Amino acid sequence: MDPGRIEELIRIYRDGLLDDTIPFWVRHGVDRQHGGFLTFLDRDGTVFGTDKPVWLQGRFVWVFSRLYNEVERRQEWLDLARHGSDFLLANCFDADGRMFFLVTRDGTPLRKRRYLFSECFAAMGLAEFARASGDDEIRRRAIEVYDLMLHYHKTPGLLPPKDIPGVRPMKAHAMPMILIVTSQIMRQVDDRPIYRQTIDESIYQILEHFSKPELGALLESVGPNGEFIDTPEGRRITPGHGLESAWFIMEEGRYRGDRELSLRALPMLEWSLERGWDQEHGGLLYFVDVKGLPCVQYEWDMKLWWPHTEALYATLLAYHLTQDETWAAWYERVHDYAFGHFPDAEYGEWYGYLHRDGTVSHRLKGNCWKGLFHLPRAQLMCWKLLEEMRPAGWA
Amino acid sequence: MDPGRIEELIRIYRDGLLDDTIPFWVRHGVDRQHGGFLTFLDRDGTVFGTDKPVWLQGRFVWVFSRLYNEVERRQEWLDLARHGSDFLLANCFDADGRMFFLVTRDGTPLRKRRYLFSECFAAMGLAEFARASGDDEIRRRAIEVYDLMLHYHKTPGLLPPKDIPGVRPMKAHAMPMILIVTSQIMRQVDDRPIYRQTIDESIYQILEHFSKPELGALLESVGPNGEFIDTPEGRRITPGHGLESAWFIMEEGRYRGDRELSLRALPMLEWSLERGWDQEHGGLLYFVDVKGLPCVQYEWDMKLWWPHTEALYATLLAYHLTQDETWAAWYERVHDYAFGHFPDAEYGEWYGYLHRDGTVSHRLKGNCWKGLFHLPRAQLMCWKLLEEMRPAGWA
Repeated sequence: MDPGRIEELIRIYRDGLLDDTIPFWVRHGVDRQHGGFLTFLDRDGTVFGTDKPVWLQGRFVWVFSRLYNEVERRQEWLDLARHGSDFLLANCFDADGRMFFLVTRDGTPLRKRRYLFSECFAAMGLAEFARASGDDEIRRRAIEVYDLMLHYHKTPGLLPPKDIPGVRPMKAHAMPMILIVTSQIMRQVDDRPIYRQTIDESIYQILEHFSKPELGALLESVGPNGEFIDTPEGRRITPGHGLESAWFIMEEGRYRGDRELSLRALPMLEWSLERGWDQEHGGLLYFVDVKGLPCVQYEWDMKLWWPHTEALYATLLAYHLTQDETWAAWYERVHDYAFGHFPDAEYGEWYGYLHRDGTVSHRLKGNCWKGLFHLPRAQLMCWKLLEEMRPAGWA
Repeated sequence: MDPGRIEELIRIYRDGLLDDTIPFWVRHGVDRQHGGFLTFLDRDGTVFGTDKPVWLQGRFVWVFSRLYNEVERRQEWLDLARHGSDFLLANCFDADGRMFFLVTRDGTPLRKRRYLFSECFAAMGLAEFARASGDDEIRRRAIEVYDLMLHYHKTPGLLPPKDIPGVRPMKAHAMPMILIVTSQIMRQVDDRPIYRQTIDESIYQILEHFSKPELGALLESVGPNGEFIDTPEGRRITPGHGLESAWFIMEEGRYRGDRELSLRALPMLEWSLERGWDQEHGGLLYFVDVKGLPCVQYEWDMKLWWPHTEALYATLLAYHLTQDETWAAWYERVHDYAFGHFPDAEYGEWYGYLHRDGTVSHRLKGNCWKGLFHLPRAQLMCWKLLEEMRPAGWA
């Protein structure tokens, strides 16, 4: 990648983040009346739903705090992080310490789910905000929700089961995946060994149980000891999740100065790209069956924004770590597709959902899942990595 | 509609049913080893998943029994109905009398859900099979599951709530909708007044609570007394469900000799078609927001087979009842789209899922929802209605 391209990409990511993504959400998504963030935004930012998804409250807090920690000490960002943190702490916790999935605009709980993702995103947001603010009470709450989340995750039977227990036990890749990144964020403000242990266990599971070199795939669901389960659910690959795990593990190797660890993520990166890339229309498919059999999910062949933002950072990091031009070529291929299809030239920010052929299927900019997270995270991390990639003495 | 067209359509539906749809499923979907029906079928009928969705077990039993009752006393159909009924009774009921949602190939329960649709389809299947077989024990079981279903439906708190209770109480149109058709099938073998009462109550709810003439729409979810709830969920229209309710009510009017009742279904038929029809690509959208705001579901703009099969019968029946050419024009429009897009010329049967532009998104022929039901029901009912529509003295 030549120095001119690196500078060009830095501008694209930095300006996209600071002049487009963040302003769009600050302008349209901050609920000055009831606190927290509104995420059901139409193409032009008009609010079309006022319920507040708890995942996204935590994610917004993480993004504003991270900007404050990594870009500049802008008071507005710290204030917005506190704005979200206040809402999260006041309204999103149930009496048992677990969190809700959805609350009304004024913070009345609407829905609680059996999964622990609300808790993971809250832990991330609160930990990053504790780092930004130095607020020890926030730090204490981050640790509390992380520990409770881990307790629920590791104690069989505490979470209500989705299926009849015992018949076809399965575990999902999404959980070790998110535990890595959550623990990586937590250890910025807490030095207990639990984070390292959790990351080690999660990487072990991903590499030994979910990765299937003989199939050339990272599976989304396997048996308790990594058994391949030959059902539509067991055969399902989620390329976007494979891409996330790949860069979480590469980052862990960077953090530990353990290059071998980083390189162990490369097969799952390659599988996710090779398996996920749509040879016909370009872009990454949402789900793929490992045997090429039909996927049952309605959305299997849609192009979602987030696997593409994850692929941008994962391929760029792989290239940076290996200097292997294969990854640069993958990076450019993903870049062309993503920037050619997702940005909304008229109203800013990115569309989230395209049909298989790349036409826009949902004009909305936010919903229960899309908010301020995958896009700004990739913009920030690509920008900062590209700065590292500048030739020595450059700029 | 001229007599030649009527004869042509009779051939299309009758031959499609007897020479394509039924043989496809008899050839590929009957599990001779473990009983019941396999529904995860690839385009050519290859089995790609062996779990058995309970909804579909009941629906298959209904179809084979109905064919026996309405087309001809073919022993094969009666045997296949018993084949499904045996599996249903042996494997699909929980100890509390409620039913599972999914069982394994050998009948081990995998998943139970909070909704009562498994029970409704089982009641339909068993009642129709009791009519076909004259088996009094089957009749007793049909009544038992119907009564239990109604008890759960009408007793607040018996079913685990999806959301935190009390915050935003809503009721769904799908339930009164399915109660009409289930009760219509039950009363073929049981003369208790409960069926008439349930149908009256359901029609009242659909006309007074879910129909919104001022919005020109039948809503899918409203408050307990029909309150419009201005959220994405409350604004959602499901045209396919509106079409089903429309013809269930038209049929109820026919059964009672109450023409006024039948005609009361016409506005919801018109709304469903006008709201649901895709002006750009043709075909019926799966979900529409009543205010034209974004729908959040991934599949909102997909074209599914079943709203189209429901539209075929609903428009044909509306035309037959009113002789209004508007309905004939709608019928022909839906017919052109459906027969132009869904049938698989190479392997038979219909695709179930298309992208908005009409290209095939899922090559599969069956899954948890698509099996032997909407298509053969429409083929059978259109065929039989077209025979009624023959000019007097014709044929």
